[in-house]
Amino acid sequence: MIKITLPDGSVKEFEKNTTPMDVAKSISEGLARNVISASFNGTKVETVTPLTTDGSLILYTWNDDEGKQAFWHSTSHIMAQALEELYPGVKLTIGPSIDNGFYYDVDLGDQTISEKDFPAIEAKMLEIARGKHDYKMRSVSKAEALDFYKKQHNAFKVELIENLEDGTITFCDHDTFTDLCRGGHIPNTGIVKAVKLLSVAGAYWRGDENNPQLTRIYGISFPKQKELKEYLELLEEAKKRDHRKLGKELELFTFSSKVGQGLPLWLPKGAALRERLENFLKKAQKKAGYEQVVSPHIGQKELYVTSGHYAKYGEDSFQPIHTPKEDEEFLLKPMNCPHHCEIYNSRPWSYKELPKRYAEFGTVYRYEQSGELHGLTRVRGFTQDDAHIFCTPDQLDDEFKKVIDLVLYVFGSLGFENFTAQVSLRDPENPDKYIGSDENWVKAENAILSAAKEKGLNYVVETGEAAFYGPKLDFMVKDALGRSWQLGTIQVDYNLPERFDLSYKGSDDKLHRPVMIHRAPFGSMERFVAILLEHTAGNFPLWLMPEQAIILSISEKYEKYAEKVLNLLENNEIRALVDNRNETIGKKIRDAEMKKIPYMLIVGEQEEKDGTISVRKHGEGDIGTITINEFSDLINSEINRTLKKF
Amino acid sequence: MIKITLPDGSVKEFEKNTTPMDVAKSISEGLARNVISASFNGTKVETVTPLTTDGSLILYTWNDDEGKQAFWHSTSHIMAQALEELYPGVKLTIGPSIDNGFYYDVDLGDQTISEKDFPAIEAKMLEIARGKHDYKMRSVSKAEALDFYKKQHNAFKVELIENLEDGTITFCDHDTFTDLCRGGHIPNTGIVKAVKLLSVAGAYWRGDENNPQLTRIYGISFPKQKELKEYLELLEEAKKRDHRKLGKELELFTFSSKVGQGLPLWLPKGAALRERLENFLKKAQKKAGYEQVVSPHIGQKELYVTSGHYAKYGEDSFQPIHTPKEDEEFLLKPMNCPHHCEIYNSRPWSYKELPKRYAEFGTVYRYEQSGELHGLTRVRGFTQDDAHIFCTPDQLDDEFKKVIDLVLYVFGSLGFENFTAQVSLRDPENPDKYIGSDENWVKAENAILSAAKEKGLNYVVETGEAAFYGPKLDFMVKDALGRSWQLGTIQVDYNLPERFDLSYKGSDDKLHRPVMIHRAPFGSMERFVAILLEHTAGNFPLWLMPEQAIILSISEKYEKYAEKVLNLLENNEIRALVDNRNETIGKKIRDAEMKKIPYMLIVGEQEEKDGTISVRKHGEGDIGTITINEFSDLINSEINRTLKKF
Repeated sequence: MIKITLPDGSVKEFEKNTTPMDVAKSISEGLARNVISASFNGTKVETVTPLTTDGSLILYTWNDDEGKQAFWHSTSHIMAQALEELYPGVKLTIGPSIDNGFYYDVDLGDQTISEKDFPAIEAKMLEIARGKHDYKMRSVSKAEALDFYKKQHNAFKVELIENLEDGTITFCDHDTFTDLCRGGHIPNTGIVKAVKLLSVAGAYWRGDENNPQLTRIYGISFPKQKELKEYLELLEEAKKRDHRKLGKELELFTFSSKVGQGLPLWLPKGAALRERLENFLKKAQKKAGYEQVVSPHIGQKELYVTSGHYAKYGEDSFQPIHTPKEDEEFLLKPMNCPHHCEIYNSRPWSYKELPKRYAEFGTVYRYEQSGELHGLTRVRGFTQDDAHIFCTPDQLDDEFKKVIDLVLYVFGSLGFENFTAQVSLRDPENPDKYIGSDENWVKAENAILSAAKEKGLNYVVETGEAAFYGPKLDFMVKDALGRSWQLGTIQVDYNLPERFDLSYKGSDDKLHRPVMIHRAPFGSMERFVAILLEHTAGNFPLWLMPEQAIILSISEKYEKYAEKVLNLLENNEIRALVDNRNETIGKKIRDAEMKKIPYMLIVGEQEEKDGTISVRKHGEGDIGTITINEFSDLINSEINRTLKKF
Repeated sequence: MIKITLPDGSVKEFEKNTTPMDVAKSISEGLARNVISASFNGTKVETVTPLTTDGSLILYTWNDDEGKQAFWHSTSHIMAQALEELYPGVKLTIGPSIDNGFYYDVDLGDQTISEKDFPAIEAKMLEIARGKHDYKMRSVSKAEALDFYKKQHNAFKVELIENLEDGTITFCDHDTFTDLCRGGHIPNTGIVKAVKLLSVAGAYWRGDENNPQLTRIYGISFPKQKELKEYLELLEEAKKRDHRKLGKELELFTFSSKVGQGLPLWLPKGAALRERLENFLKKAQKKAGYEQVVSPHIGQKELYVTSGHYAKYGEDSFQPIHTPKEDEEFLLKPMNCPHHCEIYNSRPWSYKELPKRYAEFGTVYRYEQSGELHGLTRVRGFTQDDAHIFCTPDQLDDEFKKVIDLVLYVFGSLGFENFTAQVSLRDPENPDKYIGSDENWVKAENAILSAAKEKGLNYVVETGEAAFYGPKLDFMVKDALGRSWQLGTIQVDYNLPERFDLSYKGSDDKLHRPVMIHRAPFGSMERFVAILLEHTAGNFPLWLMPEQAIILSISEKYEKYAEKVLNLLENNEIRALVDNRNETIGKKIRDAEMKKIPYMLIVGEQEEKDGTISVRKHGEGDIGTITINEFSDLINSEINRTLKKF
């Protein structure tokens, strides 16, 4: 008999060679129907793997990430079989699951695959799936494995096998298909009810451009047809909300091949939007006792040698800038913290003057390979809403709570209601990995945990995930499509104060080391605007909209009145514009809807006579005829609903 | 007989060999007494040089820059004689006049000179001056000149002479002293009534650090003792106003040797000051139809090859930034214009949409040798209050006037009342030097001239001073000490629109080339803040002051009332702080005066009882006891006096 511990802590005895599926059945038939994957003592196993020792078992269903990964990886085997049947002589290489689906890299020889071939492959895959073939793992000797693939003239698999140790090699069979595989499959192919191939692309063998080029086919699969349909709708909606597409349509930003990829140029409306976001945060930060500073975008290499960034990132970053006549080396700044340390260091401090909170919308530059660049979310230059708090260890608790308040205020005012937090603590078994005294770590970790608890955050604790220089708190937001984005971060740092020899005079008249907090609620202006665009589909909170209202004149007779309304709105600090084009009112409304302007104010004979406007709300339609003052009140009350008080 | 044309256009006949001094005497005895230098047909001559041909003569007095230059250069001869007498064996090299005085670089051999030796040298110089020795130029053969200095073992002068052509070499004698000299002296040493040696420094022969090191002695001289006294007082005042000193005292900015020289770090008060200046200009620019944009601080090398900046400045600039994995080269941006051209180029334009006015507080980086760096006026990174206007040639006239309005508004609101302008036009004799059609140049030059006239500017026209790409208008301001600073510039550009292939669709439906205007009223935030500091000695206009008022509690009993006053002031948007230290009121007032805080608000028993404050103005003293509201009105009316409406 063996003892199996389940996630709820319960321990049950089973006969040796019991499988995870047997365990599931022993719990309930329902669970057994839904279990598609398992892990034993932290290692992936098949649902049919016989268990031979005591251990901890976790059973996964489609609702678990691990379940999805097994599902998608198993589907890649089905696709590989379909390809072998439809494209004889195809050579398989690797076929992993990814965040959303799976891919398989194959060598098609002289054959090609394009999107128009997808339906036939999908049909073949479903045919295979319907066969309800079990996935069966078996051990093979290295010689046997090599022999299998040499017969197929598959140099890729041969290369993979040559790097494996004899005795550790496994194949997975289902139906007539066999693949070199480490395992992690669903019970049988019949669970896969819906498949969709998504795209085809070129990929180099092992990602190295000196190697042969392969064909990568991306796909996704689901246990229900309905789930595929929902996923495809989500993809469609995500495409519409793609910030690169919206950024162009709303004229927020652009890129220039001459200026360089990954270096956004903010167009007037985007720059104004960004400035409103910056002013919004500046105002809150001012109330919270932050002080703005300004530092240059370069620093001597020496600065980053001191901070440790050079040793860690130097070779993978933008390379040093030399001067023509002197022996100097500068780097584009990848972070603002070293500069802020030097600002702190420009004079001595007493404990009575702390905390100092230096804030800067600091533009930093980090090299990314051109293939990794993506719109505003992966760029080579971005502006952090950065701040560094220099405080005494005793102030950490209070400062942490204040930063959380600020972050919650930011999320709330921008409509991110759905977020979670992660507290990363040190690994108590490896205390030597970390800098800073034990006493200070205890203080800092307790400060974060008690702050997270007190502020009612929905958080998880990850032990061992802290950076070597301090514990941290990260925020993840879910957007309107349910996608997760990592946003603001709050991080304690014992390292830089050490490296920059920062100090303050304590009440004991002796010099002490301050603690630093790094924090950025937005993360970066670029990434945040991108996420906000995808979250809101460009329908930003009213206080942030580039244009809050557009006045549409019914005909040229009312142009003057339209201008007058514009003037009155501007006096009330409402951002508005006029559409006095010689177009029908229907066309003007359609154009304004396209531009996502929240309020359309229609003016014609009656409105001019009464001194009113007919108001139409974006995406909603008519909401009645009112005076300018009533409209102004309407706008203000909507703004007050979203833009919280801080 | 020869015909001499005088600056007023009158022509008089004189006998051949008449001297400039003779001409002066023929005009008036008073003029003759004051003439100290002259130029004939555009070339410097001595006042005793015989004139042998027809030509234009200008006579200079101490009031002319040319007169001062002759005066100071002549004094350098006197100092050289004094040095030869006091430091036997001293070897002379060169001794020019400079903007304020003169210097002489000498090789002292084993001897040294320090500031404590200055009185003796000055005394000897005055003794020589009192001898009223005439300056007498004479031609010498190259052989004779070499012989003279070889006997003195003066390798420096020998080197200078060896590079001269025989027949062009002249010596200047006065008293027992002789120097190799091209001329340009005052009549005699007796005119020099006051001398002051200012400093002593090391200097390399011909500025090359591989050459021997010399001793450079700086001095200045005047025709009246009183003028020396005034000059020394001015120097003293300028020292007090040195922006580097004030910047430190007022905690506006700092430098860090780790970050790098010439890279300012703006401290909280300085960053806030700078932001107020930026917001002030942004607000006016918004009214004037500008749109803010944001562009990165680097650009591909290709961008600057296109703009022409790379060919012109590449080698003398910060060198290209390489990437670790790809074959890319970036440059720190030395100018914002190429980026703004690419923003313009991101979509097509119709003439109906022009002008486009893109503004950016854009930080640029330009390499300067470390020896050239000076506080905030000569830095390696600075933020321009840049904007580029893209317009049709016909809009140039109107745009130019609007820019002048903006510049005048900026100067007016910041207390620069004393300024002049310079219009730089092309050289009509070298039309090939310039890019752009003749028609457009005529349009642009007329636009500038008519705008300068219409706006009532005090301007001079400099023909031939235009850049090859367009005419321009520069502003020079005089600060409170009468020193001139070059500030804002407005520049027409036909070159970049060509190089970036900018276009707009005209009313004829064809593509046309827009004209560009570059303009920056401040020039740069760094330089402008420096000038403003030196102009105002830190007493900025009230709207700009970091702190407008400080509340001084007479004793701890009134701390609460002081905080209450602070709260009320903050509600009225007055920037204030409280001094509740346990110090005497006298000490608190002295400290506030030091910090140049405009208003000190003293609160004690009577004030708390009456709900008032006793107001003291910086540098002026008590101005009475009033209520918070009265004080608020006082502040607002002072702000309205300085901060003009735009």
